[in-house]
Amino acid sequence: MILTDSLLDFFLETRKHSEIICEPLEIEDYVVQPVVDVSPPKWHLGHTTWFFEEFILKPHSPDYVQFDEDFSFVFNSYYETVGKRVIRSDRGNLSRPSVKKVYEYRAYVTAGIKKLFSQNQEKNLNTLLEIGIHHEKQHQELLLTDIKYILGNNPLLPAYSNTFQDHPVETHQQDWLGMQAGIYEIGHDSEEFCYDNELGRHKVYLQDYEISNKLVTNEEYIQFIEAGGYGRFDLWHAEGWDWVQQNQIQAPLYWHKVDGEWHHYTAKGLEKVNTHAPLTHVSYFEAFAYAQWKGFRLPTEFEWEAAQSFYPWGKRWEWTESAYLPYPNYQKADGALGEYNGKFMVSQKVLRGGSVATPEKHTRFTYRNFFHPNLRWQFTGIRLAR
Amino acid sequence: MILTDSLLDFFLETRKHSEIICEPLEIEDYVVQPVVDVSPPKWHLGHTTWFFEEFILKPHSPDYVQFDEDFSFVFNSYYETVGKRVIRSDRGNLSRPSVKKVYEYRAYVTAGIKKLFSQNQEKNLNTLLEIGIHHEKQHQELLLTDIKYILGNNPLLPAYSNTFQDHPVETHQQDWLGMQAGIYEIGHDSEEFCYDNELGRHKVYLQDYEISNKLVTNEEYIQFIEAGGYGRFDLWHAEGWDWVQQNQIQAPLYWHKVDGEWHHYTAKGLEKVNTHAPLTHVSYFEAFAYAQWKGFRLPTEFEWEAAQSFYPWGKRWEWTESAYLPYPNYQKADGALGEYNGKFMVSQKVLRGGSVATPEKHTRFTYRNFFHPNLRWQFTGIRLAR
Amino acid sequence: MILTDSLLDFFLETRKHSEIICEPLEIEDYVVQPVVDVSPPKWHLGHTTWFFEEFILKPHSPDYVQFDEDFSFVFNSYYETVGKRVIRSDRGNLSRPSVKKVYEYRAYVTAGIKKLFSQNQEKNLNTLLEIGIHHEKQHQELLLTDIKYILGNNPLLPAYSNTFQDHPVETHQQDWLGMQAGIYEIGHDSEEFCYDNELGRHKVYLQDYEISNKLVTNEEYIQFIEAGGYGRFDLWHAEGWDWVQQNQIQAPLYWHKVDGEWHHYTAKGLEKVNTHAPLTHVSYFEAFAYAQWKGFRLPTEFEWEAAQSFYPWGKRWEWTESAYLPYPNYQKADGALGEYNGKFMVSQKVLRGGSVATPEKHTRFTYRNFFHPNLRWQFTGIRLAR
Amino acid sequence: MILTDSLLDFFLETRKHSEIICEPLEIEDYVVQPVVDVSPPKWHLGHTTWFFEEFILKPHSPDYVQFDEDFSFVFNSYYETVGKRVIRSDRGNLSRPSVKKVYEYRAYVTAGIKKLFSQNQEKNLNTLLEIGIHHEKQHQELLLTDIKYILGNNPLLPAYSNTFQDHPVETHQQDWLGMQAGIYEIGHDSEEFCYDNELGRHKVYLQDYEISNKLVTNEEYIQFIEAGGYGRFDLWHAEGWDWVQQNQIQAPLYWHKVDGEWHHYTAKGLEKVNTHAPLTHVSYFEAFAYAQWKGFRLPTEFEWEAAQSFYPWGKRWEWTESAYLPYPNYQKADGALGEYNGKFMVSQKVLRGGSVATPEKHTRFTYRNFFHPNLRWQFTGIRLAR
Repeated sequence: MILTDSLLDFFLETRKHSEIICEPLEIEDYVVQPVVDVSPPKWHLGHTTWFFEEFILKPHSPDYVQFDEDFSFVFNSYYETVGKRVIRSDRGNLSRPSVKKVYEYRAYVTAGIKKLFSQNQEKNLNTLLEIGIHHEKQHQELLLTDIKYILGNNPLLPAYSNTFQDHPVETHQQDWLGMQAGIYEIGHDSEEFCYDNELGRHKVYLQDYEISNKLVTNEEYIQFIEAGGYGRFDLWHAEGWDWVQQNQIQAPLYWHKVDGEWHHYTAKGLEKVNTHAPLTHVSYFEAFAYAQWKGFRLPTEFEWEAAQSFYPWGKRWEWTESAYLPYPNYQKADGALGEYNGKFMVSQKVLRGGSVATPEKHTRFTYRNFFHPNLRWQFTGIRLAR
Repeated sequence: MILTDSLLDFFLETRKHSEIICEPLEIEDYVVQPVVDVSPPKWHLGHTTWFFEEFILKPHSPDYVQFDEDFSFVFNSYYETVGKRVIRSDRGNLSRPSVKKVYEYRAYVTAGIKKLFSQNQEKNLNTLLEIGIHHEKQHQELLLTDIKYILGNNPLLPAYSNTFQDHPVETHQQDWLGMQAGIYEIGHDSEEFCYDNELGRHKVYLQDYEISNKLVTNEEYIQFIEAGGYGRFDLWHAEGWDWVQQNQIQAPLYWHKVDGEWHHYTAKGLEKVNTHAPLTHVSYFEAFAYAQWKGFRLPTEFEWEAAQSFYPWGKRWEWTESAYLPYPNYQKADGALGEYNGKFMVSQKVLRGGSVATPEKHTRFTYRNFFHPNLRWQFTGIRLAR
Repeated sequence: MILTDSLLDFFLETRKHSEIICEPLEIEDYVVQPVVDVSPPKWHLGHTTWFFEEFILKPHSPDYVQFDEDFSFVFNSYYETVGKRVIRSDRGNLSRPSVKKVYEYRAYVTAGIKKLFSQNQEKNLNTLLEIGIHHEKQHQELLLTDIKYILGNNPLLPAYSNTFQDHPVETHQQDWLGMQAGIYEIGHDSEEFCYDNELGRHKVYLQDYEISNKLVTNEEYIQFIEAGGYGRFDLWHAEGWDWVQQNQIQAPLYWHKVDGEWHHYTAKGLEKVNTHAPLTHVSYFEAFAYAQWKGFRLPTEFEWEAAQSFYPWGKRWEWTESAYLPYPNYQKADGALGEYNGKFMVSQKVLRGGSVATPEKHTRFTYRNFFHPNLRWQFTGIRLAR
Repeated sequence: MILTDSLLDFFLETRKHSEIICEPLEIEDYVVQPVVDVSPPKWHLGHTTWFFEEFILKPHSPDYVQFDEDFSFVFNSYYETVGKRVIRSDRGNLSRPSVKKVYEYRAYVTAGIKKLFSQNQEKNLNTLLEIGIHHEKQHQELLLTDIKYILGNNPLLPAYSNTFQDHPVETHQQDWLGMQAGIYEIGHDSEEFCYDNELGRHKVYLQDYEISNKLVTNEEYIQFIEAGGYGRFDLWHAEGWDWVQQNQIQAPLYWHKVDGEWHHYTAKGLEKVNTHAPLTHVSYFEAFAYAQWKGFRLPTEFEWEAAQSFYPWGKRWEWTESAYLPYPNYQKADGALGEYNGKFMVSQKVLRGGSVATPEKHTRFTYRNFFHPNLRWQFTGIRLAR
């Protein structure tokens, strides 16, 4: 458990970092929602703030005056416990509250937390604050990917930032790491922060397996495209094939063929694809089809965790073969915080690792990310097993 | 035909007026599109500008340099002649070009027109300019109704302006005006501007009829609601009844019952309904059902035009029983301008009159407005006939 | 008004004719509903029977015992007056009542009517019976077109009947009939049966016009196809163009290009298109686009009616430019029968004439048929005007 | 491996049994498809026949003459390898081929198989035949559940059969069976037939757990309903809650409250719910919510298999917490048969056991059934674990 002082610093840094991410934006960029999975940046800024107000300041700070009571349904997400969401407007239709107002809201709540924690050292509150910080960090990653989606689907393809680093290259040779059959321990086991879905450290039995020491590269994936991978139904799940057909998928998200060469939208605008860099922006369906085509498979999340110390990771969220399910003896938290993870444990696939959009100190080797198998606006990648 | 000098003044006033309408907006309000019939204010500002650039400056001003070639698909609407629209993003997803950029675009094109018309006095160009001005005036009306929709569907119900006058009251007694059977002349017949759909002045034979000298008031419509009008399928068209059921319609758009009293969203925010004011924001379906309930009917557009000099009008667009069809000998204009009206002459109903949102000099007694029968975000109203 | 005896004969002939139409069917063909506009033949047989039971036998035959009370919601259509439809199953999902049961129902109700009218000579009941007969005749036309749709969309393309005549050829030369401007009388004006929508004979003023003495042929329409008519948006209404794009329309309904030659599904199965025969199975959108391409237009329903005695008609329902609207002083009938026509008077186009599927004595020159502008499973055709 | 002679008997019995299932049907019942997950009985009869024709007779019987080449796309399902499905008609729209024709097709193919296997004793062909038999048995279960759906959604609620036994009662006391942590062997391990998804017997490590010796009863589930379980979002997955809201789910499938008492549609028609019988026709979402409400959970498929010898099962397919995923070293079969199972291994949940609709010799303790979590037209049930 972090001491209150350094926790407050961690809080303030985190709050600031969300705003740094948004610095390159025009006000208009904060507002739009091109697809339902992407939220307007303004909403992320407000929602992360509302979380601190709703779960810490309102219940635990006796003299706290709510900033604006209407904000609780504007910035609520799925927390059905906290009251009925009155109006069915989609997030992307909400021009108000204005961006300026949202920044005022942020400053107000940040000040409220600062005041409360200057006076208070209760362990229970520290836990809540830590959850709030990590909640905001999760949204920082979404902020980056949602901004990329908003700008990358604008016909003007505007650049986001020339300093954002999204083309890491792994320079080592691809090789297979052999892992021996046996019982492995899986799940979180330290004093540090983790989510409820990582808890319940437990044994799993793994068979012999091999896992790649390197992510699949753009070059390798281009071979799959050129071999007609998107046209061979035998490589795909039935649902994956329907997804390919209905959406006429022919390449990873953001890829455009310009004058016969693959380009993709990046933080710097449209650029030629770097063939040595690890592939990104593929769905689970694509990851699976690629593995089928190569004659290999994706690792399970347990295989990934058991082997993770033997290869570098953290540039791409890596799709696993595992469905997102509760660990044995999983306990969901009481009240609204119990809605955080458990209610999503159906129909989703687990991703492990982290990505170029993951904020510092946010991921760890037991971290379980999860998305529906068709989604690909995160910085997702592929590691093979066999 | 207006002389070039006064036409230029008319042009400049019109350009300015669009921007005056937008003055109360936050930048965020310019961007969103809550439903497909409503366009973002930014788009209206750009699209009306693009019209002048595309149809006047590019073909007729030899030294004109296009502001930004990407804008032609961003701000095109239905003019399929002008080139394929490349990207399928909805208007409400486009955060760029920014509002600032759009205002720069406006200033640039306005200056281009000013320069061209200072040098040029061709009748042909004047006609194009006049069309462009009236096109922008049409969009001014839409700007106001779209802004109302954007703010009126925001859960915060922000006010637009305290000076906008949208509650006109007709103080005279309701009475029936008797009109005699016979041949009447319908359609435009003067030197002044009109649209192609008003042309082809022609004879129609009308039977004896009576038409009300007054619009239906809120009070009268509340009686319909309280008599259960929304629950009696026998008053509705089959399509109207489906619309009521599927959308659970129970009152005009923007109406909310608060503590047992009808309120509605107005330019000033949520206000008590003024029972003496003319009803607005009803669909054709509702207008028809109301007339059925009263034992009367809606006038045809010909009955309306023949009698229009005997009653005041211009506060509400008035639904007529007429379908939007070409007049005899209707000729659509050549090229892209031919797409202006004719291509919409199916499945829509004619509205006559004008409304509190109609800009000055924009409507006239031959003006034919048209919308699908379910729409009600315009300032629509009801005048009865029998 | 027909005397009761000959009316009973007319009734019995009509009842028999519906069953003759169904003779070529397999039991399976009675059940399916490939699209919402098409009803299962079984439903037509039951619904026309239910009409006699509901509106004549139940209210007017004191000792009549209802055949099966569940049938009133199974075979009801849009008559919302008669009681809430309890179960939302689509017609095409109802395997029961069986076809055998439906024929028993028909025989039972036919006998009931026969008994009632042998004893009863009231004018009022005769009127109801006459409506019921014409209602069944309307459904006979739908039976034929729905059967064609069911078989013509089956991949086996089974024949319906080798004796059904659906390829009439007009052998006379195409010419334009000139009609003079003036007042014409429109609407029904005799003792014979008509629907409420034809009543209210009234004057209309028509301008000078010319109308073709011949329907558009397959050959002429093939020229439109070959000239790229389906690819030229300037020929279409905006809604028509959307319909073409979304449904990838490239030819009339039932047309297939086989080895470079146009074939179409007919009652006899797949056959080569007879180029001299009048075109059929086009939507209003196609009719309009074709007329645009030729530089002509469609007639209004008034122009059609005023000129109808100068050309042969009755092989094709002919699309007109007119929207389906009430005539002046239109009165809808009281009670459930009032739902017959008036509630459809929005968003539809009028067709005039009749077709090869129209039963004898069913159409007349004042008859107003109506469908949505995208539909084309009726035997629709094109007559041009200018 | 079964010897050819007894295999042929097994084949003939199986073929006959499909037809016995359909004996109570009217011809009309064979044709309809009320929802996409349910297939018309006619299609099941044809598709299972096509399987033998396509995978055995056509490739392996040199003198075999195809019954009708059009049938290969009419009765194909998801086997994309075998050729493009030409026409997009839904199964429920196909009135032809007639039921009579389908029975002729069955007899023809059955005779073809009989002839081939009288001459041929190749092990390879026996394997294919065995797969075909089990494929037909799978469809027998679907036949029963699809027939129930077709009749149970007909407003007349016709009975299927008075002899079908669908109300088994478990008379023993509910108790918890304690299982010890350790390594268990999972998967098929005998000479008998199984599907590819059961192969790859492997070790799994299970924690200590307890599993109920009895299925949840109707009475227990009624308590959940009466306690407001369908209205408490905290008991449901987010997707489950959306499903409840959108479909207004308030009870298991086929349940109707009549005069204050729960009834359900059964093979005998509408009957009072037997409170002692095991619950059926619930979705995974409902099974999960019920378990949450009781404070327990569903077993994983591994827990189920490890404990299966200690309790009776086979009356209900039992939802497990496990997602449908490949076992370690899963190999899909070559060619079209490889499409059998593997392509569905995403987004589905595993069910274990069997049901009153499962044909004899069709299930076993390693059998893995799988459905999407919202489906409930199978005879699904709940067994709790903790």
